[in-house]
Amino acid sequence: MKKFEEKTTKTTPIYDGKIVKLQIDDVTLPNGHVAKREIIKHPGAVAVIAVTDAGKLVLVEQYRKALERSIIEIPAGKLEPGEEPIVTARRELEEETGYGAQSFTFLQAFATSPGFADEIIHLFVAKELYKIENKADLDEDEFVDLLEVSLEEAGQMVADERIFDAKTAFAVLWLATQYENKL
Amino acid sequence: MKKFEEKTTKTTPIYDGKIVKLQIDDVTLPNGHVAKREIIKHPGAVAVIAVTDAGKLVLVEQYRKALERSIIEIPAGKLEPGEEPIVTARRELEEETGYGAQSFTFLQAFATSPGFADEIIHLFVAKELYKIENKADLDEDEFVDLLEVSLEEAGQMVADERIFDAKTAFAVLWLATQYENKL
Repeated sequence: MKKFEEKTTKTTPIYDGKIVKLQIDDVTLPNGHVAKREIIKHPGAVAVIAVTDAGKLVLVEQYRKALERSIIEIPAGKLEPGEEPIVTARRELEEETGYGAQSFTFLQAFATSPGFADEIIHLFVAKELYKIENKADLDEDEFVDLLEVSLEEAGQMVADERIFDAKTAFAVLWLATQYENKL
Repeated sequence: MKKFEEKTTKTTPIYDGKIVKLQIDDVTLPNGHVAKREIIKHPGAVAVIAVTDAGKLVLVEQYRKALERSIIEIPAGKLEPGEEPIVTARRELEEETGYGAQSFTFLQAFATSPGFADEIIHLFVAKELYKIENKADLDEDEFVDLLEVSLEEAGQMVADERIFDAKTAFAVLWLATQYENKL
């Protein structure tokens, strides 16, 4: 996995934020040329494909400042330092939807924007959902609406871009294929 | 799509790079509280699901500095300023794979990292491929290997994370479902 490796000769930190870091790496290319790479460091995240006993997919709608609009996504959230992804996944599902899950399975991980960021999303499947009576509240500054849609409706939402988020589009197609029968 | 809107009261530019910009937005939340948002601005990109007449999916392997490894992706590239996505898509397919396509169809767009970046990928499907005889060369500093795999093999590559890229995983599932019969 080191094919065409770009060796770092110098790293210049530009910004160290609450969520992202930005750095410029000077690199040497396979042909000996030099170049600069703008790199965003991100702690990584989880996302949860949660399916109710009635076969509905659990979605959340929230405002995404980067896009200047609200979008519909599967429940997701950033990893805290040192946290196991499954712990984050359980917490985010509960906080954003009020659901716990008897069955919680790791599906796979993928990079979201490999051209400029190191964010990796760890994707889980949650089934046998139950409502949590005294659930941990959302942060008072988080605003999230809950939706539960059939697979057919979710498919339509991808096709007409009401679902406008890569991980969620993947989740809908995965459900449609019950991919590799892992569910 | 403005539900739970976060109104910007101030934007502080941090970095203006060759590919990304970083800015901090001071925002007012729906409950009147204030917060800061770290925002990455990106020009957007295209990606191409290219299928040969033999039904194979065209993939490229390249080093991704942000991940410090090489990964396997569908052909993709950044939009140049003012460029129509289909123009970028045709160019990137040609440069990275040596293929042109008689049939080039827009499939959909989605955000890749809405939590911190505004990158949107415009996804196209290319069919009726032909090899370009005197193709435009890759930039001499770009290093890309070409792969052509069956849908079955691509599915296995997603399952075992040899495909470790969200847009490519989506593309493989989409092919598996021939989603909405748009192909």
